[in-house]
Amino acid sequence: MTRTVDLNSDMGEGFGHWRMGDDAALLDVVSSANIACGFHAGDPDVMDKTMRLAVANGVGIGAHPGFADLKGFGRRKLPLPHTEIANAVAYQLGAAQAMARRAGGKVRHLKLHGALSNMASVDHDLAKACYQAALDVDPDIVIMVLAATAMEEVVCDLGCNWAGEIFADRAYNDDATLVDRSLPGAVLHDAATAAPRILKMLDAGAIIAESGQNIPCRIDTICLHGDTPGAVEMARGIRRHLTDAGITITPL
Amino acid sequence: MTRTVDLNSDMGEGFGHWRMGDDAALLDVVSSANIACGFHAGDPDVMDKTMRLAVANGVGIGAHPGFADLKGFGRRKLPLPHTEIANAVAYQLGAAQAMARRAGGKVRHLKLHGALSNMASVDHDLAKACYQAALDVDPDIVIMVLAATAMEEVVCDLGCNWAGEIFADRAYNDDATLVDRSLPGAVLHDAATAAPRILKMLDAGAIIAESGQNIPCRIDTICLHGDTPGAVEMARGIRRHLTDAGITITPL
Amino acid sequence: MTRTVDLNSDMGEGFGHWRMGDDAALLDVVSSANIACGFHAGDPDVMDKTMRLAVANGVGIGAHPGFADLKGFGRRKLPLPHTEIANAVAYQLGAAQAMARRAGGKVRHLKLHGALSNMASVDHDLAKACYQAALDVDPDIVIMVLAATAMEEVVCDLGCNWAGEIFADRAYNDDATLVDRSLPGAVLHDAATAAPRILKMLDAGAIIAESGQNIPCRIDTICLHGDTPGAVEMARGIRRHLTDAGITITPL
Amino acid sequence: MTRTVDLNSDMGEGFGHWRMGDDAALLDVVSSANIACGFHAGDPDVMDKTMRLAVANGVGIGAHPGFADLKGFGRRKLPLPHTEIANAVAYQLGAAQAMARRAGGKVRHLKLHGALSNMASVDHDLAKACYQAALDVDPDIVIMVLAATAMEEVVCDLGCNWAGEIFADRAYNDDATLVDRSLPGAVLHDAATAAPRILKMLDAGAIIAESGQNIPCRIDTICLHGDTPGAVEMARGIRRHLTDAGITITPL
Repeated sequence: MTRTVDLNSDMGEGFGHWRMGDDAALLDVVSSANIACGFHAGDPDVMDKTMRLAVANGVGIGAHPGFADLKGFGRRKLPLPHTEIANAVAYQLGAAQAMARRAGGKVRHLKLHGALSNMASVDHDLAKACYQAALDVDPDIVIMVLAATAMEEVVCDLGCNWAGEIFADRAYNDDATLVDRSLPGAVLHDAATAAPRILKMLDAGAIIAESGQNIPCRIDTICLHGDTPGAVEMARGIRRHLTDAGITITPL
Repeated sequence: MTRTVDLNSDMGEGFGHWRMGDDAALLDVVSSANIACGFHAGDPDVMDKTMRLAVANGVGIGAHPGFADLKGFGRRKLPLPHTEIANAVAYQLGAAQAMARRAGGKVRHLKLHGALSNMASVDHDLAKACYQAALDVDPDIVIMVLAATAMEEVVCDLGCNWAGEIFADRAYNDDATLVDRSLPGAVLHDAATAAPRILKMLDAGAIIAESGQNIPCRIDTICLHGDTPGAVEMARGIRRHLTDAGITITPL
Repeated sequence: MTRTVDLNSDMGEGFGHWRMGDDAALLDVVSSANIACGFHAGDPDVMDKTMRLAVANGVGIGAHPGFADLKGFGRRKLPLPHTEIANAVAYQLGAAQAMARRAGGKVRHLKLHGALSNMASVDHDLAKACYQAALDVDPDIVIMVLAATAMEEVVCDLGCNWAGEIFADRAYNDDATLVDRSLPGAVLHDAATAAPRILKMLDAGAIIAESGQNIPCRIDTICLHGDTPGAVEMARGIRRHLTDAGITITPL
Repeated sequence: MTRTVDLNSDMGEGFGHWRMGDDAALLDVVSSANIACGFHAGDPDVMDKTMRLAVANGVGIGAHPGFADLKGFGRRKLPLPHTEIANAVAYQLGAAQAMARRAGGKVRHLKLHGALSNMASVDHDLAKACYQAALDVDPDIVIMVLAATAMEEVVCDLGCNWAGEIFADRAYNDDATLVDRSLPGAVLHDAATAAPRILKMLDAGAIIAESGQNIPCRIDTICLHGDTPGAVEMARGIRRHLTDAGITITPL
């Protein structure tokens, strides 16, 4: 049996003259790129450049909408009405679709960014508002959800295309939430530790919490990070471990 | 012979808590709405509301992209590279398409806003960069151009769908540019003066300059304004005059 | 005995081409102007114009800092660290001082805007962070606080210049919070009702809650609104009632 | 005779989560910091942090106002009325003063940023509008001007405190403008070439153009850059060369 998984990473997170992360390097590693849409990061020029790079590398394009909060990089939980958030998701998705089309590609998936993702992972109504807005714009889009969260329940209810995601570098609690960053062991820093753990989860078809408990879920894609020192090297290492273990890395 | 013409107006030019113009009133008058896309005015909520109103009124939806300049309302000529402007046009068009789709409509036309329009009307390369970007996103879109300007030459060269536009309330020079606002007679303030002039132009198939000279051109749509005192009343009066004269007002 | 009170109103709440409220009319009524500082509304040009008008009318100038949230007009409760909010308050106060100096005036007081004010009225630490930041910039500034709230306790602790404020048009609960807008009687709409109520409070040296209960507090200034239909007329009426009753309207 | 000169560099050019340049390293090298004021770069938090670092390093603080253009980093020539630019300069200076005061320092000088500087160096009226606005806010502020340009003539006319500046790493034309970056030799890349050239200019009391021609002018400060690879090393090298030659590096 051939096993496949998608590797995804956030990209296009510069703005104007500011840069963040090494997109060119990561595009050699991942199979899906979550591209910022101009609200929390990114601008039409950064989007255009990032999407053309993704197309050239055969990497799947995703819209990565976030809160309209450049200063906070979309990481602050803004108390907005769901209708306003839904409008913002639709707007950003449409903008990304246009930029992808011009770059010779297509927006294949959507993943919520930062605080919006955190909020939607525990708020069914918010997740539904965001995803319904995206599906109104493109009924075939693949919604990328944090595995075993409210997001997953919502996409199952909606009956849409979706992909379950786990983090390569984060420890999980028994309820599938992430172990707080401030606790020891919460963040993994090298591929040698992270990759075997991922393989075990893929084999188990489950998130394996820090306690050892299994949380059964669909794992279609693994999130790699690229914006910290050593991140690209770790991402490369994880990909190598997975392919050495017979896993095929393939876009959604 | 039935004669038809489109009436268009700029709309959705509020932002957040700020309002501009009386969109609801104008939507009873015009057949096409040029809706701001969030860069010089408008935001996803204003766009959503305006587009739903347009759909409910059977008014055609247009994307009205401008410079990313909320402070200047897109009326300042920004010295940007054409590739950057093209990216911004594509981004805004895509956003508008998504918002229109959710509102049950479709972006049928594109009209450049403010300073971007002024610049493109005398700069073939800029006009081409903007229109090509829009056509890359939607090859069927109708490009609304200022009649008898560089814009018109560009859309003819591109071989795309287009509509020629004249202003209801502005006097023209012999080269089809507008008489400077500071000069007497440059701006018309009542329907009783403006409407007969429009009828003469429609009959002539030409802009009639202040000098009396005819500048032959296609006149598909007439731009009405809604953001000054008395503007809605004037717009209503012009529509009444035209329909009384047997002209059918119909979207592009 | 001569009794005096200050009347204040929020002003300078336009942005770029957008307008809000009738500042020119209100400046004939109030003795203190709370001027937006560019984060939730206002821009350097609006500030300059508003401050020159205030100086010309002998109206005291106040800085009215808010969250950096043009889209939400500073009315959304942003979950920011207190140090970040303090920096934003200091920044806006400094900007206002410079603009006032050029306009021939001086920033005499500071009043928090919108959601920031709501949050600080029930959060001692936040109120202290904001006020300490302002006092670091100008130790003599008069802090305008919502009477009988956490804000008042903080300024008493800080030992700084301060002024207690009540609303002309809002009913109060027994704990000095405002009756929810959705409840009947929460908002007063005419001077004939509002003015006698204010006079009673001034006489009592206390907020008189809807229940009739007195909440003793210092009342130095009364907040009038100017951004709703009829607001300017109501403000004029209240001023007339107060002066007819022998109250002198005077800046802080 | 003891000779002294100031070394200055642009700083605080991050925004939110984005960083630019290595301010901490440069603060060991320069004696004056030109700190972005939030319009083209910088935000209240970045300003606070940068100013505290400057104070801790005994480095003089300058306001570095630019166009309100985060996307373009203040490097695009915006066609704004002089009154609007003057308001923006005053606003930014005031904000910087407040932030400096809280950081335990004081804004000692002002230097225009990017496109605004380029424009003012050849436009007397614009330079005067900017500098007069700054002087209205603080009559004692030291205006940093590009030596031998229109800026210098304006500050002489205004009779204010000023400092003449040359670039460490740029070749000059005979009219004191910079040799176009695209030409060979326009930009110097190492301290070994740049430092002796600076020493010769300090000795001559003149800019020495590429042609060898002397352009007499006051040289009070030398601009070092910190935002390109190797820039900090070059800055350190220049400082070492100058001090080795008996020059004392001292703030304005």
